[in-house]
Amino acid sequence: MLDARALLDPGDRIALIGDEAILIPQLNDSGVSDWPEFIDVYPASERIAMNESPIDAIRTKPDSSLVVMVGLHAAGKIDACVSAGNTGAFAAASSVAMRRLKGVQRVGIAIVVPTLHGPVVVCDVGASVSCRPKHLHQYAIMASVFAERVTRVSHPRVGILSVGEEDSKGTDVVKDARKLLKADSSLNFVGNIESRDLFRGACDVLVCDGFVGNVVLKLIEGLGESILTDVVQNIKAENNPDAEALAIKAVKTTQTKYDFNDYGGAPLLGIEGICMITHGASNARGITNAIRQAKAFSQYQVNDRIKSLLGR
Amino acid sequence: MLDARALLDPGDRIALIGDEAILIPQLNDSGVSDWPEFIDVYPASERIAMNESPIDAIRTKPDSSLVVMVGLHAAGKIDACVSAGNTGAFAAASSVAMRRLKGVQRVGIAIVVPTLHGPVVVCDVGASVSCRPKHLHQYAIMASVFAERVTRVSHPRVGILSVGEEDSKGTDVVKDARKLLKADSSLNFVGNIESRDLFRGACDVLVCDGFVGNVVLKLIEGLGESILTDVVQNIKAENNPDAEALAIKAVKTTQTKYDFNDYGGAPLLGIEGICMITHGASNARGITNAIRQAKAFSQYQVNDRIKSLLGR
Repeated sequence: MLDARALLDPGDRIALIGDEAILIPQLNDSGVSDWPEFIDVYPASERIAMNESPIDAIRTKPDSSLVVMVGLHAAGKIDACVSAGNTGAFAAASSVAMRRLKGVQRVGIAIVVPTLHGPVVVCDVGASVSCRPKHLHQYAIMASVFAERVTRVSHPRVGILSVGEEDSKGTDVVKDARKLLKADSSLNFVGNIESRDLFRGACDVLVCDGFVGNVVLKLIEGLGESILTDVVQNIKAENNPDAEALAIKAVKTTQTKYDFNDYGGAPLLGIEGICMITHGASNARGITNAIRQAKAFSQYQVNDRIKSLLGR
Repeated sequence: MLDARALLDPGDRIALIGDEAILIPQLNDSGVSDWPEFIDVYPASERIAMNESPIDAIRTKPDSSLVVMVGLHAAGKIDACVSAGNTGAFAAASSVAMRRLKGVQRVGIAIVVPTLHGPVVVCDVGASVSCRPKHLHQYAIMASVFAERVTRVSHPRVGILSVGEEDSKGTDVVKDARKLLKADSSLNFVGNIESRDLFRGACDVLVCDGFVGNVVLKLIEGLGESILTDVVQNIKAENNPDAEALAIKAVKTTQTKYDFNDYGGAPLLGIEGICMITHGASNARGITNAIRQAKAFSQYQVNDRIKSLLGR
């Protein structure tokens, strides 16, 4: 988070929310002695654990860092929120404290999937496990604006996740959503996308319901880890130290390309605010990149653009 | 297919269906001069291409190898079918020519996913894009019998694919199906499984609807290819022949572990017959293993067991 200083324009500050008795000594020990010049610490005495039930947690812990942060944002005291904490609690607290953008029927969580052909924004990955066609259409519009303005892909190609390329493939919801996407001239719609083509540069935005999207997200994580761990084990089994170092370097390079920390955060799209959910295992680079995204989200007026498109 | 000779018991024969003018010269040139001792060639003058519409293809090409094969099976002239052709056409032709097993509401396609912790049978991967809870329950029963008798996992642990471990996670269909699975004492049900845990040995059978299953199947294929190709490119960039040889060997070893040819085929479960769908890119080992599976399917009376469980 301290690394994010480089991103700040004059007047920008970072709000850090949590237990002051822990945070302030850590900041003092950080080696950045002038931290008060760009960081404000806001007290919060409670914390929500990763495995707590979101709804119960936000109800019973009003002074948790998550709930306090979202409250500060809703009150206009901070311009954006970033958290690597409990995703469900973050989304729930945001939905309670802030309205949806005018015209938005469902909020969606988008993630940026790193591929060798560039980032792909996938929405929804868990906010809404079952969707109507209209919700998928709105996800396409919101994710497309995010891709254009934050991941900086011009005229992002939008696909809908299905089980074949033909119009006839997919569930009724997917088929009806496909019609809505095709009819919307504000979108650069490229048709059905099969999951194998996610990694082949077929689109820049991929729309799906939150059940399927969550399965995709976690499968990428699980399979990537499993494959690369196995390659490293196979390399080590050869007992060739010289060659081993270079071979493992090649694996690590691949790992870096698929590293979620590259893109930082997953925006909660459709809310009257800026909420970036980051991976629970984010490192400093991941948090810094999420702060960068939050700033771009504000600077390039993602929400205003979404409102103007949905208000048509 | 010629390699499958080693699997045959006395009296077993392999039926090969297609254009005799092509097949017979190929068999004569194969180096196995006594092929007529274990192979019967059945003529079929047409062929269905991989990209043809299944329903149209089976209607307009009654003398295609797929339709002829399924017809021979339905007439009791052959005991099982194996095809690396058009999956949809194979499933459609089978469903037209053969009844469902008594009690089965929907047929399902199961695949065997190789993982470092052993094979996992995933059902459905594309027969039925939207399912009711009862269909998922039947998939669990059928895939469990297949896992026990064909992939040889005793008391297979059955999971249902969802977006969290808690009972409250998932769509209404998943939650209702979960109750049916839990209440069925014939199943070794282990609860919700997240997609990342598919590769971590969490279950032996994974149940989902055919839309999600198809997304999972194709994502495994696309991501695996993308990751391993990238590792190979990175190591080549190092210009170090020793390290390159080591890394490529390690990647190939991993590739072998995730090779669908290991398990051969995807059974069409719930049909009054034995239909093994193999990958379009199957090699000799893949086809041989599919024949092995088809034989085990028959020998261990998978369909009789399914009927007795569904007839309860």
